[in-house]
Amino acid sequence: MRQAGRYMPEYREVRSRLGFLELCKDTDAAAEVTVTAAERLGVDAAIIFADILLILEPMGVGLEYPTGDGPVLHHPVRSAADVARLPDVDAAAAVPFVYEAVRKARAALKVPLIGFSGAPFTLASYVIEGGGSRDYIRTKTFMYREPQAWHALMRRLATAVTDYLNRQIAAGVQAVQVFDSWVGCLAPDDYERYVLPHMHEVIRGVTKGTPVIHFGTGTAGLLELMRAAGGDVIGIDWRIDLGAAWQRVGYDVGVQGNLDPVALLAPVPEIRQHAARILDRARGHDGHIFNLGHGVLPDTPVEHVIALVDMVHEMSSKKAALGAGG
Amino acid sequence: MRQAGRYMPEYREVRSRLGFLELCKDTDAAAEVTVTAAERLGVDAAIIFADILLILEPMGVGLEYPTGDGPVLHHPVRSAADVARLPDVDAAAAVPFVYEAVRKARAALKVPLIGFSGAPFTLASYVIEGGGSRDYIRTKTFMYREPQAWHALMRRLATAVTDYLNRQIAAGVQAVQVFDSWVGCLAPDDYERYVLPHMHEVIRGVTKGTPVIHFGTGTAGLLELMRAAGGDVIGIDWRIDLGAAWQRVGYDVGVQGNLDPVALLAPVPEIRQHAARILDRARGHDGHIFNLGHGVLPDTPVEHVIALVDMVHEMSSKKAALGAGG
Repeated sequence: MRQAGRYMPEYREVRSRLGFLELCKDTDAAAEVTVTAAERLGVDAAIIFADILLILEPMGVGLEYPTGDGPVLHHPVRSAADVARLPDVDAAAAVPFVYEAVRKARAALKVPLIGFSGAPFTLASYVIEGGGSRDYIRTKTFMYREPQAWHALMRRLATAVTDYLNRQIAAGVQAVQVFDSWVGCLAPDDYERYVLPHMHEVIRGVTKGTPVIHFGTGTAGLLELMRAAGGDVIGIDWRIDLGAAWQRVGYDVGVQGNLDPVALLAPVPEIRQHAARILDRARGHDGHIFNLGHGVLPDTPVEHVIALVDMVHEMSSKKAALGAGG
Repeated sequence: MRQAGRYMPEYREVRSRLGFLELCKDTDAAAEVTVTAAERLGVDAAIIFADILLILEPMGVGLEYPTGDGPVLHHPVRSAADVARLPDVDAAAAVPFVYEAVRKARAALKVPLIGFSGAPFTLASYVIEGGGSRDYIRTKTFMYREPQAWHALMRRLATAVTDYLNRQIAAGVQAVQVFDSWVGCLAPDDYERYVLPHMHEVIRGVTKGTPVIHFGTGTAGLLELMRAAGGDVIGIDWRIDLGAAWQRVGYDVGVQGNLDPVALLAPVPEIRQHAARILDRARGHDGHIFNLGHGVLPDTPVEHVIALVDMVHEMSSKKAALGAGG
């Protein structure tokens, strides 16, 4: 996750010339940073350079990415009337640059390409809070006080996200990841009432034959419900044992994870220990995608990420030689 | 948790005259806000007015509580040398005002009184970050890069916390809560290596006969390990089903929780639904302490907290009448 990012000198060089949204919309540059990152790191799949919130821009919420800060939405949604006023999103006309970047990256890549979007809850949280949040107080309060408007908002977002993912697939991505990054702030009962049906609609609506990775952070208490919502692979962060998580979601789905991104700031032998433990927990079952539990942090040494990819390849082939899969 | 807080007019009135630390050190005022909050809310136990970080003040870390922000530590610990320079804390001499406030509150209260402290990991995170944090990057990096200094710091904190809790018990508190509020940021393997032994030392060292509530947030992936570390009651936040959590920690310990504090901003019928679901999940086992999953939020209407206490009493006595305990 976040293969191309501020921790990588090649990326910082491109960003010195282009703002974040500019880079997303410059399809040559977006394809280039995607391909460069995947090649530099030696990973087994690339993820298209984009942002989980891009599909929100055409909704008129005033999306902006100020330098050095998280995204800001200048026109947040705070009432049922605000929800009713939101325009319908035509995902074809709204973000043509994403599909173009996918086509260009795909043409240059030797490994598969993953497309993605934010999930309805995570998008709704940005739309309502007007940016990131620690406690999601406005989001949850809206859910509790205005359940009809909440569901109307989630339905609109689910429709837009599904269409957006399918157009990325049509443009060439070979898997999609749905980032419900902040859904871990919810109680399981609230997830079930306010989120699950919409997430189910999104995943059910993805073009058949394309694997869906269903990801969130802080979801150790939600895994069974996320699995019920759908996905071929459940993506987890580091705050749960991978073996315990896989047992809970069931071995008929894959799991993705689950190295703490902060571990990449540790000395290499410590990184190796962390990676080895994760591979151990995945042993004996098919369908583990080794990954971080969230995006690469800005201060991460690139050499550490490359070393991680190498050691996972090395340790996985040993595992494979032992007939343990993974 | 946070029975006396900014959501309560009586507390705001006292705070208009006294700064946060001033209030902690004014033992008449600290006892008064403790007793007033417990009486106003009608709860079954009071918690002494204090802060989880108070035991850090005598360590010379420059603890301050700026108005409207979280705590700041002006002299954070960033190296092994910084750890070595920390003075030993004499918990008797360091925070005499806490014990005095306990004695005064105890004399005035009709319900039991709970004492508390931050747990070693949560204290270490403040000491290293210099305040609150989102990702705990400095804390974890210190753990990974300087494991010996980390364990030395945790041992010092564990000794100070144990002594501090026992002196609160000697002053009259009838139970203690150890707040490992931010430990949920850790991977289970890291918890086991870097935290569990120290937490075990603290809980093992608490004066026998006094119940220990072992609390953290975001701990859905850590519950078995927290239980292994100790505690008569495991306190959980709202991000896990209470029934699932209890099953995992075992019915030979109690559980405390687990209403989302944001639910108290919802309309009263919605609060009632949330409370009823929690009580349902606790049915059939002894030792559930109904509580929020974290502190009361500043914008919470006091009437909603009072209504919650009343409805829990009402629904619990119904449950008791049905022979279901809880």
